[in-house]
Amino acid sequence: MVAAGGRISGFAMSDVRMKGFARRSTVAQALAWLDSHLRPLPEQTVPLAQAYGRVLARPIVSDVNVPGFTRAMMDGYAIRASDVQGAGPYSRLTLRVIGCSLPGRPFAGTVQSGTAVRIMTGAPLPAGADAVLPAELTECSGERVEAVGDVGPGKHVGKIGEDIVAGQQVLPAGRMLRPQDVGLLSSIGVAEVPVVRSPRVRIVITGNELLPAGARPEGYRIVDANGPMLQALVARDGGVPELIGPLSDQPEIILDAMRGPADVVLVSGGSSVGEEDCAPLLVRQHGQLAIHGIAMRPSSPTGMGLLDGRLVLLLPGNPVSCLCAYDFFAGRAIRAMGGRTTNWPYRRVRLPLARKIVSAIGSTDYHRVRLVDGSVQPLAVSGASILSSTTRADGFVIVPEDCEGFPPGAEVEVLLYDDLQAASV
Amino acid sequence: MVAAGGRISGFAMSDVRMKGFARRSTVAQALAWLDSHLRPLPEQTVPLAQAYGRVLARPIVSDVNVPGFTRAMMDGYAIRASDVQGAGPYSRLTLRVIGCSLPGRPFAGTVQSGTAVRIMTGAPLPAGADAVLPAELTECSGERVEAVGDVGPGKHVGKIGEDIVAGQQVLPAGRMLRPQDVGLLSSIGVAEVPVVRSPRVRIVITGNELLPAGARPEGYRIVDANGPMLQALVARDGGVPELIGPLSDQPEIILDAMRGPADVVLVSGGSSVGEEDCAPLLVRQHGQLAIHGIAMRPSSPTGMGLLDGRLVLLLPGNPVSCLCAYDFFAGRAIRAMGGRTTNWPYRRVRLPLARKIVSAIGSTDYHRVRLVDGSVQPLAVSGASILSSTTRADGFVIVPEDCEGFPPGAEVEVLLYDDLQAASV
Repeated sequence: MVAAGGRISGFAMSDVRMKGFARRSTVAQALAWLDSHLRPLPEQTVPLAQAYGRVLARPIVSDVNVPGFTRAMMDGYAIRASDVQGAGPYSRLTLRVIGCSLPGRPFAGTVQSGTAVRIMTGAPLPAGADAVLPAELTECSGERVEAVGDVGPGKHVGKIGEDIVAGQQVLPAGRMLRPQDVGLLSSIGVAEVPVVRSPRVRIVITGNELLPAGARPEGYRIVDANGPMLQALVARDGGVPELIGPLSDQPEIILDAMRGPADVVLVSGGSSVGEEDCAPLLVRQHGQLAIHGIAMRPSSPTGMGLLDGRLVLLLPGNPVSCLCAYDFFAGRAIRAMGGRTTNWPYRRVRLPLARKIVSAIGSTDYHRVRLVDGSVQPLAVSGASILSSTTRADGFVIVPEDCEGFPPGAEVEVLLYDDLQAASV
Repeated sequence: MVAAGGRISGFAMSDVRMKGFARRSTVAQALAWLDSHLRPLPEQTVPLAQAYGRVLARPIVSDVNVPGFTRAMMDGYAIRASDVQGAGPYSRLTLRVIGCSLPGRPFAGTVQSGTAVRIMTGAPLPAGADAVLPAELTECSGERVEAVGDVGPGKHVGKIGEDIVAGQQVLPAGRMLRPQDVGLLSSIGVAEVPVVRSPRVRIVITGNELLPAGARPEGYRIVDANGPMLQALVARDGGVPELIGPLSDQPEIILDAMRGPADVVLVSGGSSVGEEDCAPLLVRQHGQLAIHGIAMRPSSPTGMGLLDGRLVLLLPGNPVSCLCAYDFFAGRAIRAMGGRTTNWPYRRVRLPLARKIVSAIGSTDYHRVRLVDGSVQPLAVSGASILSSTTRADGFVIVPEDCEGFPPGAEVEVLLYDDLQAASV
């Protein structure tokens, strides 16, 4: 570190910033610190209609049988199996049709020997019957039905609890609920679902040069890209974003903003080590700045720590760095707090490189790439300020810190930005 | 088809149902009809903060340059390159620091020969300067800076429009917006985004036996599982669901429900050919029932048609059939209307089968499977009423209609139900 003592005030801090970080943490060290501070949030209860995509805080045990009654599994006739034994196309047996059982509208009487009740799939099996003779094995004419085949006892009958037995765990804690899970919960009478609370994520945008999203860029002022991008990323990862700013780079304003209601705070901009970079100093002064400066490209001016006991992540203001630092650290934290996996939320493909990727030993690199004709093309533009490099890219390749890069033709893993539902354009 | 004429009223229709469909369409025929009726909905405008995950209705062309000014790409000193030519550790050249340029706070004066302006990444390059000398190549002491290396003209200077040039298309029509896309739109001053309108999806649940979601199953009445499941599926596919019902199986009530405001109508239950199955008859009477009965298992009692010029999809009441029919047809329609891809919204893996899958020629089958130790285990339970088979399953295998199934060890494609963000449980 360049010693700052004895220099003219107003330049000294900047010199420190400009010469960079004295010592950078590795990505692995930063992740280790982060992971040691991640716990799923406490449980909350949501109505069933809002449960899709949420994570179960507890296992769900059914207190009912599904179905709760014996039911027909095919359309046909509820009969006594012994009545139709030996029936066939050339030895027809005739039964008297005494009624009908429909779903929710059971037949009230009893099937006696020699009688049958017309029954629909899902309808309650009437008393006295022990099987369903499928319609395909009958010929019906008004109040009589002829069996042209036979079935054994229990055939085409759905038993009580065949879908779910009372007392059975139907879904485990930690399950991210799928559409059919929500249907299943409905079928066992669950109205409110215990889920991991969604993290409230306070997004604090700082920078004197920034205009708020929705404004037009003007003169030397640029429009905040990180706020809207982070709102979308947080929503993707199951958090509830609240956007604050853009704020000017004044310590008291930024400190106030960092202390608002939240489970985790993301600060974008002013994350480095200069006089304009308030956030790290504030976290150090008022809390704990655990990690500051990470051996990665872009995003090296990333920090993380605790303020008022809450996790604070300091993300660089350059938009590519901000995206990269979000995905490596902030998204991971938000997903874990919401009970989700910490894995990358991107699909992976392995494909050969069209051109080499060069990386410095000692730095974890995040290379934007395109997929062209089944091969991986690194994007030439690598500036951390060029956001369009991430919109032109199909995904990215991570080069680990102990790796110098990859030669042309090497098969690399690409993490894809695209959504499975995106139409190919 | 079994002739219904001359039979006692009240049984005749049921016989038709019970004997099944006279002729089934193939899945390919049903998809061909469906696809011929799918168009993306018209454009609507949404605020930028709501644009994530939506599909662009038009290409976006920037009418500004980003950046709109020449800026520093590194922390250091804005200089005239000719002033430091030949500088090195042993041939230091000294410049006078005349000020500072910060992001949004440009230096107002001009860099003359022999002077330098301290500059931060992203700050406007002052007049007179043509390069940035990185801090690493300097030693600073108050109002003087010593160059210990040199740079050429234009070095570490970001040019006007280097990210985005005015007039350039930044995103194409049909793009499903990613977080960084939203950031990019913000940076070029977009406040409102033209997107394909989200389909309003009316979900009509019918069945006398059904209690609404949130109730407890009671006696011979079961709780609607399809309504909550379809709400979640529609939301996943970008639609806006509205749940109606459960309704009793009365034609006038169901017809009314089908005619409410919507872009597409899904009817769950009563989709077959019996007297309780109102929906197909209503669509035939009041609109066009184009497809009814499909050669697939489950979901064969699926129908589709037009009512009041709107697409109506008739989904079976059995929950597994409902899920399957939704995924084959309804989800595809909703995604296409919202401008998304018609592809399956599931990840795919290819793995060997642990046990054979048997399928009848002439039917497209949907087999729920589990993944166990890297192999694919078909679930033994195949009943269309056993919803828990879809929550125990990790995904499904589709057996095409011209295929008898697969032997043990055959590599099959599994479509995975899980979300990438789901924690492994």
